[in-house]
Amino acid sequence: MTGTDGRARIGEMITPHGLVQTPAFMPVGTQGAVKAVLPRDLIEVGAEIILANTYHLYLRPGDERIARHGGLHRFIGWDRPILTDSGGYQAFSLGERRTIDERGITFQSHLDGSAHLLTPEKATDIQANLGSDIAMVLDECLGYPATRDEAAASMERTLRWEARCRQRFLALRDEGGQAASRPGCDHRASPRRSPEGVGGQAQFGIVQGGTHIDIRVASAQATVELGFEAYAVGGLSVGEPPDLMYETVGETTPFLPEDRPRYLMGTGTPVDLVEAVALGVDLFDCVMPTRNARNGQLFTSVGRLNIKNARYSDDRGPADPRCGCYTCRQFSRAYLRHLFVAGEISAAALNTLHNLTFYLDTMKRIREAIMFSSLDQLKEDYRRVFSRRSANS
Amino acid sequence: MTGTDGRARIGEMITPHGLVQTPAFMPVGTQGAVKAVLPRDLIEVGAEIILANTYHLYLRPGDERIARHGGLHRFIGWDRPILTDSGGYQAFSLGERRTIDERGITFQSHLDGSAHLLTPEKATDIQANLGSDIAMVLDECLGYPATRDEAAASMERTLRWEARCRQRFLALRDEGGQAASRPGCDHRASPRRSPEGVGGQAQFGIVQGGTHIDIRVASAQATVELGFEAYAVGGLSVGEPPDLMYETVGETTPFLPEDRPRYLMGTGTPVDLVEAVALGVDLFDCVMPTRNARNGQLFTSVGRLNIKNARYSDDRGPADPRCGCYTCRQFSRAYLRHLFVAGEISAAALNTLHNLTFYLDTMKRIREAIMFSSLDQLKEDYRRVFSRRSANS
Repeated sequence: MTGTDGRARIGEMITPHGLVQTPAFMPVGTQGAVKAVLPRDLIEVGAEIILANTYHLYLRPGDERIARHGGLHRFIGWDRPILTDSGGYQAFSLGERRTIDERGITFQSHLDGSAHLLTPEKATDIQANLGSDIAMVLDECLGYPATRDEAAASMERTLRWEARCRQRFLALRDEGGQAASRPGCDHRASPRRSPEGVGGQAQFGIVQGGTHIDIRVASAQATVELGFEAYAVGGLSVGEPPDLMYETVGETTPFLPEDRPRYLMGTGTPVDLVEAVALGVDLFDCVMPTRNARNGQLFTSVGRLNIKNARYSDDRGPADPRCGCYTCRQFSRAYLRHLFVAGEISAAALNTLHNLTFYLDTMKRIREAIMFSSLDQLKEDYRRVFSRRSANS
Repeated sequence: MTGTDGRARIGEMITPHGLVQTPAFMPVGTQGAVKAVLPRDLIEVGAEIILANTYHLYLRPGDERIARHGGLHRFIGWDRPILTDSGGYQAFSLGERRTIDERGITFQSHLDGSAHLLTPEKATDIQANLGSDIAMVLDECLGYPATRDEAAASMERTLRWEARCRQRFLALRDEGGQAASRPGCDHRASPRRSPEGVGGQAQFGIVQGGTHIDIRVASAQATVELGFEAYAVGGLSVGEPPDLMYETVGETTPFLPEDRPRYLMGTGTPVDLVEAVALGVDLFDCVMPTRNARNGQLFTSVGRLNIKNARYSDDRGPADPRCGCYTCRQFSRAYLRHLFVAGEISAAALNTLHNLTFYLDTMKRIREAIMFSSLDQLKEDYRRVFSRRSANS
């Protein structure tokens, strides 16, 4: 029994707000709240870290307001770790009239049309105000597909932005500001490591380069050269086929340090999680469990289940007989369908509770499979259950 | 220390699903779910009984489906008492092209336009299928204001409908159907009474007559003559001034049996609760705490508070410093405002948790005040706090 199975690893990520067992999944709390559930629900389903979106919080209620409130943890009533993204992706996808140049991303707020310029320095400052445990560098968002030249140019710009982010981050740390004096987010394979050396916020670099492997490798090497507490793989899950994503991830992770967590941003399906862990990834976030829950799609041990389907009208069984969550313990598929069809808020709450439980349980299964060197089996099980053919909807 | 203070009484209502301490407030679970909270939340805030709407459940998912599911309690995952209304009020207010004649209420579903005839017998059958602890008779809905003649004619029709409801109810009981063999809902002043004699569903009669006292009195006497397990005062909180409502209630309750709970339907504000208890009322339901919560209005120990108000943007205090609910323990007014303004589902959940706590705590304060013969003081306190002048919004 070891902490690795092939390239998959189990470990612990040490942050100012406590340990995170990896591989880990982060529920997404875009506006400082994971939609339809409360912090106590997140603890119940086993979430050890959540993600919050810098773009949304910067615009509303404002990072300075949150700083006055004592930081994001206190503001939202969550005292476990928080990772914030840089805001770049949302500024580009949600902002209006957005343009990108060397300075950063110029956009108008989707809320009130106000004009903003998100620079690497600004993205770093905002995250320092939020006081998240893990801050991300500002990167340029590249669509799929992208030509070699586009990917190379975008990756180079991201590198220049990353360097500026790091410079600002270190300057803030030296000032003894929000980012405290010593790097957090150490990551080691088990056995558990005491949290010595943990001080303030950590900053993760991001590898870009589209699906062009050599550009990815160059990005990884240069980003590691800049020196961050840990590293993410960005710019995937943007429309490319899953196998191409897996290939890109698999060719990138070997160039990221063994002793630091690796974060695959914005991914994914349950199968994606197992596949990516097998390629050496430790950290994930995705809106899929929460968003799909609100749309009535449940993830279960026998596949996806669309609770609005009329076939569940008289189904007295639980959403997932193999699940121990509150939703599955207390309510039938028939009732969940009724709540969904009737437009009850409780439908969103119960479905989200279940889907997050499924995702967090999946991470637990993954960690156990690594311990017992049975990740290949788990991968096969998940592939079979979530294949299109066996979908239970 | 006794179980009464003037005309106010404390007691226990005995139902097939357990005891209810009275005076009691019933959160409204229109479609088989109290909006924005889960059954475990209801238990946490101290709800001992909830109300469900027969009209909604009859149309969707259907009372027969619920019966196949083992009844409403099992369907919705709530094993404490449930009271169902007759469906008449909603058939009249929500149904389309509705007409009323001696047979009952003809209407078209607001969901799919299908045609329905809700008779007294049908309303009784539906509630038997639902298996609620307390069923209500079908009454005719009278608006405010109504002339003497209108009120008298409507009250007379209600009496005829009540007689038909009772006949059907007793027939179902004799058949040994859903309504079981012995009347539930005994009600006694403390000390606690053992639940002997509790069998199946109870049926409450409803006093009508608008704000015409002599018609109310006649209705009360005739309804008691018909012989129900207990009695409700209906047709109030329909637009009449509060003082006129109190007067009408106060002139009616003396004609309802001392040893049976008295239920004032669809009421009311926190002040209404204290006022009506002082007039001898034991049971209430109202959408106000849940609906207002979703609109951002909180009930607090210092009055009503509109959480969307900009003055709370930087307010780090709890919604109500004197409240011990999860919302007030864990979150600031600034965060609650943010959630509301950002349109987060959690806003509805947290606000509803708080408002229901305030209502259930109010009932507890009322029961304690009766015990200590200090209800007059409580009434004065609530009047002062919730007067327009001191509103804290």
